[in-house]
Amino acid sequence: MLIILKSDVTEQQIEHLIDRVESLGLKAHLSRGTFRTVVGIIGDESKLASTPLEAVPGVSKVIPVLPPFKLASLEAHPQPSVIDVAGVKIGGGQLAMIAGPCAVESWERMDAIGAAVREAGANILRGGAFKPRTSPYAFQGLEEEGLKILRAAGDKHGMPVVTEVMDPRRVDLVEQYTDMFQIGARNMQNFVLLTAVGQTRKPVLLKRGMSATVKDLLMSAEYVLAQGNPQVVLCERGVKSFDPDTRNLFDVAAVPMTKQLSHLPIIVDPSHATGRPDLIPACAMAGLAAGADGVHIEVHDCPEKALSDGSQALLPSQYAELAEQLRGLAKLLGKEISQPVGVPA
Amino acid sequence: MLIILKSDVTEQQIEHLIDRVESLGLKAHLSRGTFRTVVGIIGDESKLASTPLEAVPGVSKVIPVLPPFKLASLEAHPQPSVIDVAGVKIGGGQLAMIAGPCAVESWERMDAIGAAVREAGANILRGGAFKPRTSPYAFQGLEEEGLKILRAAGDKHGMPVVTEVMDPRRVDLVEQYTDMFQIGARNMQNFVLLTAVGQTRKPVLLKRGMSATVKDLLMSAEYVLAQGNPQVVLCERGVKSFDPDTRNLFDVAAVPMTKQLSHLPIIVDPSHATGRPDLIPACAMAGLAAGADGVHIEVHDCPEKALSDGSQALLPSQYAELAEQLRGLAKLLGKEISQPVGVPA
Amino acid sequence: MLIILKSDVTEQQIEHLIDRVESLGLKAHLSRGTFRTVVGIIGDESKLASTPLEAVPGVSKVIPVLPPFKLASLEAHPQPSVIDVAGVKIGGGQLAMIAGPCAVESWERMDAIGAAVREAGANILRGGAFKPRTSPYAFQGLEEEGLKILRAAGDKHGMPVVTEVMDPRRVDLVEQYTDMFQIGARNMQNFVLLTAVGQTRKPVLLKRGMSATVKDLLMSAEYVLAQGNPQVVLCERGVKSFDPDTRNLFDVAAVPMTKQLSHLPIIVDPSHATGRPDLIPACAMAGLAAGADGVHIEVHDCPEKALSDGSQALLPSQYAELAEQLRGLAKLLGKEISQPVGVPA
Amino acid sequence: MLIILKSDVTEQQIEHLIDRVESLGLKAHLSRGTFRTVVGIIGDESKLASTPLEAVPGVSKVIPVLPPFKLASLEAHPQPSVIDVAGVKIGGGQLAMIAGPCAVESWERMDAIGAAVREAGANILRGGAFKPRTSPYAFQGLEEEGLKILRAAGDKHGMPVVTEVMDPRRVDLVEQYTDMFQIGARNMQNFVLLTAVGQTRKPVLLKRGMSATVKDLLMSAEYVLAQGNPQVVLCERGVKSFDPDTRNLFDVAAVPMTKQLSHLPIIVDPSHATGRPDLIPACAMAGLAAGADGVHIEVHDCPEKALSDGSQALLPSQYAELAEQLRGLAKLLGKEISQPVGVPA
Repeated sequence: MLIILKSDVTEQQIEHLIDRVESLGLKAHLSRGTFRTVVGIIGDESKLASTPLEAVPGVSKVIPVLPPFKLASLEAHPQPSVIDVAGVKIGGGQLAMIAGPCAVESWERMDAIGAAVREAGANILRGGAFKPRTSPYAFQGLEEEGLKILRAAGDKHGMPVVTEVMDPRRVDLVEQYTDMFQIGARNMQNFVLLTAVGQTRKPVLLKRGMSATVKDLLMSAEYVLAQGNPQVVLCERGVKSFDPDTRNLFDVAAVPMTKQLSHLPIIVDPSHATGRPDLIPACAMAGLAAGADGVHIEVHDCPEKALSDGSQALLPSQYAELAEQLRGLAKLLGKEISQPVGVPA
Repeated sequence: MLIILKSDVTEQQIEHLIDRVESLGLKAHLSRGTFRTVVGIIGDESKLASTPLEAVPGVSKVIPVLPPFKLASLEAHPQPSVIDVAGVKIGGGQLAMIAGPCAVESWERMDAIGAAVREAGANILRGGAFKPRTSPYAFQGLEEEGLKILRAAGDKHGMPVVTEVMDPRRVDLVEQYTDMFQIGARNMQNFVLLTAVGQTRKPVLLKRGMSATVKDLLMSAEYVLAQGNPQVVLCERGVKSFDPDTRNLFDVAAVPMTKQLSHLPIIVDPSHATGRPDLIPACAMAGLAAGADGVHIEVHDCPEKALSDGSQALLPSQYAELAEQLRGLAKLLGKEISQPVGVPA
Repeated sequence: MLIILKSDVTEQQIEHLIDRVESLGLKAHLSRGTFRTVVGIIGDESKLASTPLEAVPGVSKVIPVLPPFKLASLEAHPQPSVIDVAGVKIGGGQLAMIAGPCAVESWERMDAIGAAVREAGANILRGGAFKPRTSPYAFQGLEEEGLKILRAAGDKHGMPVVTEVMDPRRVDLVEQYTDMFQIGARNMQNFVLLTAVGQTRKPVLLKRGMSATVKDLLMSAEYVLAQGNPQVVLCERGVKSFDPDTRNLFDVAAVPMTKQLSHLPIIVDPSHATGRPDLIPACAMAGLAAGADGVHIEVHDCPEKALSDGSQALLPSQYAELAEQLRGLAKLLGKEISQPVGVPA
Repeated sequence: MLIILKSDVTEQQIEHLIDRVESLGLKAHLSRGTFRTVVGIIGDESKLASTPLEAVPGVSKVIPVLPPFKLASLEAHPQPSVIDVAGVKIGGGQLAMIAGPCAVESWERMDAIGAAVREAGANILRGGAFKPRTSPYAFQGLEEEGLKILRAAGDKHGMPVVTEVMDPRRVDLVEQYTDMFQIGARNMQNFVLLTAVGQTRKPVLLKRGMSATVKDLLMSAEYVLAQGNPQVVLCERGVKSFDPDTRNLFDVAAVPMTKQLSHLPIIVDPSHATGRPDLIPACAMAGLAAGADGVHIEVHDCPEKALSDGSQALLPSQYAELAEQLRGLAKLLGKEISQPVGVPA
């Protein structure tokens, strides 16, 4: 940590600052420049996590040198993590192909879509039973009934399943049915929920918040890891921006940036990132080309009757065509699509 | 709702769309332009909340005409709401002066700060017992012990209190001690939590999310109102932007924009909006001048020892000076600072 | 300037870096921390302006300690500058009240609006003769004819005038007619144009670019100052954001932030910042309360027939009402509205 | 165009609006909904470009149905345009590989870098002779001397050249030396400059502004096209965002979005989009995978001595490795890298 002092700092203020730093068991190293004096802190910076050095008189700015996450950092774990979702591997050259409807709507829909995406090459089935809708008047999900349908569809079509959890009181219930928890973008900094899933032993798909930096995302992953659950897969799904013609702005550079900082796998979700079926295939290809460990796509066989986000879903035929292109690209890049251990019934 | 059709839409697609709309009990009104055809929907648009018309073949764009919130809208309640926080009024010309430390740290600190802010003119005391920290390694709050200290300080100094709740499992606990719930920016779209506080009968201070539009904020208020709790006070606290020299970007125009859309009071929080004590007084004055129903300020008597966000707190003396200026401005604007019914011990 | 080295930096790389720094006549001061080594640069940092130290092997990050502008900085000129626009003072407690139509449309309009805004209390008349329109098919301004009309209206109603210049080839022409140049937001980093107006001896109203930080704005002012023209007035006019319900996001905190960094006056333009007449008065009041040195407002007596941006103009009667409120606030704040020396004919 | 009326609009206001619309030779079509009345405009919307219908009493909102650009639109020109830069084709399946240093610094550097990038597979050589630097104290370019060096290096190594023009007074000069004009991001809405290059007969590489939407970019292209110069290549180079860890946010979805709207080719510039050599290769691959018509990369053989933006340049060896990967991806996608007609000396 570096502390830049104000141009009019007094010797007394400098002494006071050094006292504060040393009282925490750290060393302060002074560097007097022509215009400004800078103090370098030597020792374990995490001792300063709860100490607002910016509020000490004479201090102009505090600059952290090390990222504030540890367990998620590449320094702590130099090899890429490979996460195992009931047999499907994500990371280290193995790709996730997650697909399914936004919401679980009925057994018929889920069965049909599950069959179609498995046929097209998906290896994990998704579907929401608890939906975070911006309107209290919109369809909120089938709840436990939805979990049962999703589980049955995954089993029938031989794929592990992933579903969103929103309420810490439902983590146990969801865990009974799912192979992987999803934490949605709106809950990326719901630290209560992150702690709750960190205490389970199932993998977590953690979506980036709409205005979270890559480091914020890694800090949220750290919450899960710090509880003892090392199985986190990150997901880039677009950030807020100024162009109203897409739902979000797909930040493909987040993929290589994450790889520079962390060992955790990161996949992309072009469905939410763009909100437009006409842009999804191009962005899925871009994500894979940028090094993503998988692709998350919403698929619906009758988008106009979908109960949630139908307008951004691909048709099964469109998904099959895209999956074909993604396989070609994966081969060029030397990556593999992990095959599920389950067998379609 | 208006539906703009694609330039190459077929007559069959138009018929199919009209069938869909009419099957929901609505009427469709066709308008054929030179270049595009537009369909207007006549009837109760809320029937379409779960229907993705954008996914219907031939549709180019769907444009809502009415805002998606109802209970929060000015049309539903043309007079400004006045929220009563244990005797302190917010809205309709009455101003909240909420002040206190970011976190409750100890009885001594809370007692001293409580005395100072009441002396300076605050009418509601704030303090966090559960803290949403981005790092799992940072101070997370004193929990129930903190709630007891806050309650005691409020009682001693004759002020109602407000404190953040993060976990739906703790709503009952927090309700026992507080006069007003705070929902933090990171939980603005934690719909589970919004529903939980909507089921209580205490006022809710709802902070705007970092990348939420004003309409998103009103949709979140709608979640609380829809549960039967009409006592919501909104709070503008800055949004994410590209200038790293402030913590957030203070969106003062959100104040008059909210007044155009809703009857709910809105206050400003320049502490979080800027993160810089040197900018807080100017932004507090700006908020009041723009029509805000109050000001929320973090105050700490020893910022450099604060366990959370000390670097953005005002000193009690700075707060007293600002409060004096705010009183002058309130008088010019014809507003009153509601006086607490409690008497300092 | 601080240089943070990579964790795996070699001694050879450190030596090479120190050589590079010393070859520029600067000193390097090494500080070896537990995890990272940091190099402080001692001496005149401007020597490094064209040296990409980030590209030197072993370097992780370069952190400037001093802002890159000089003439615009408060350190260079600790007292607020007062800019004189043909007798009207801006800065140091004196307020600009700039008003007029977006574009000069005809003598009749300009004459009527000039009379109305002077009557309401404006002290500088604005009007565009060259318009930066996003569409090549929209009205582009009356050019020299417009300059003549604006000049005549200013003279008749006893006010100095300000008008936009877009083309370095027209600076001489515009200078003949105007008392102050305006550089529009889209040209804030048109360095050719900044240099051209820097070589004149007339004041410059420099509008902030849509995605420029406050420091970017000050760097653009530095271009004008560096040519020998010290008469720059800055203008906050909103930045791009994600809420489509306003044209831009009014960054009122830019006002006090500028005051912390620079001696140059800064005014606010709520017309462009919001694009909505229903929000302009509240934002004008907010700007003044935050410490702005004036307010720039577009006024049109028949907005629906305006040839440019009519939808964001106030009516003369709305402007008069707002000006009355601004005068009350100015008095409370101990500021004066500078009176023009000219006398209405 | 659709006009949504206010809920309290009067019949008189509706009549007045219809009169206004009909006086422009257009037809108004009324649609009375349950809550709101909507007016559809039938006829040539461009007649409304200078008419602020939002300012007409009783109007709540105006919604354009058609995009405001014409010559740039896919409807005007359904086949992809292929731009010819002195023999190198861009668009319609042919890819640009533009490479070179940020600034032209000397014959020796330009010669060496030119040889290296041609060897690696570049087909157009770039280099700046006029540099838009944010600081007036930074290196501003070699001007005409730089143009001569670039031209000579292009000729010697058998590549066409592209260079930035910033000043309308220098368009003629730059045209003598270059095969393609570059308009930089900061000048994307410098309409004077766009008009000037629109009057030449050389292709234009138009970079997207830092906070411009895709439609804004197309409107700026329209300025060039409207002057009679149809040879425009667009360039995505990142937009402003909130994460300080990259220079800009690379908006890869802009590539397929442009393809939905326009026939003009679009390339990507990951150098400026990220500002980080460690992210450039991944983003270049992503751009191509998303459908871009080429890649623009800054290359320098000694980045630490570069006079401008050295810290974001790739080394020639890094560029060669990336070019190899891009060729593999191009082949997979069925695209070709157009070969220059010139022969290296």
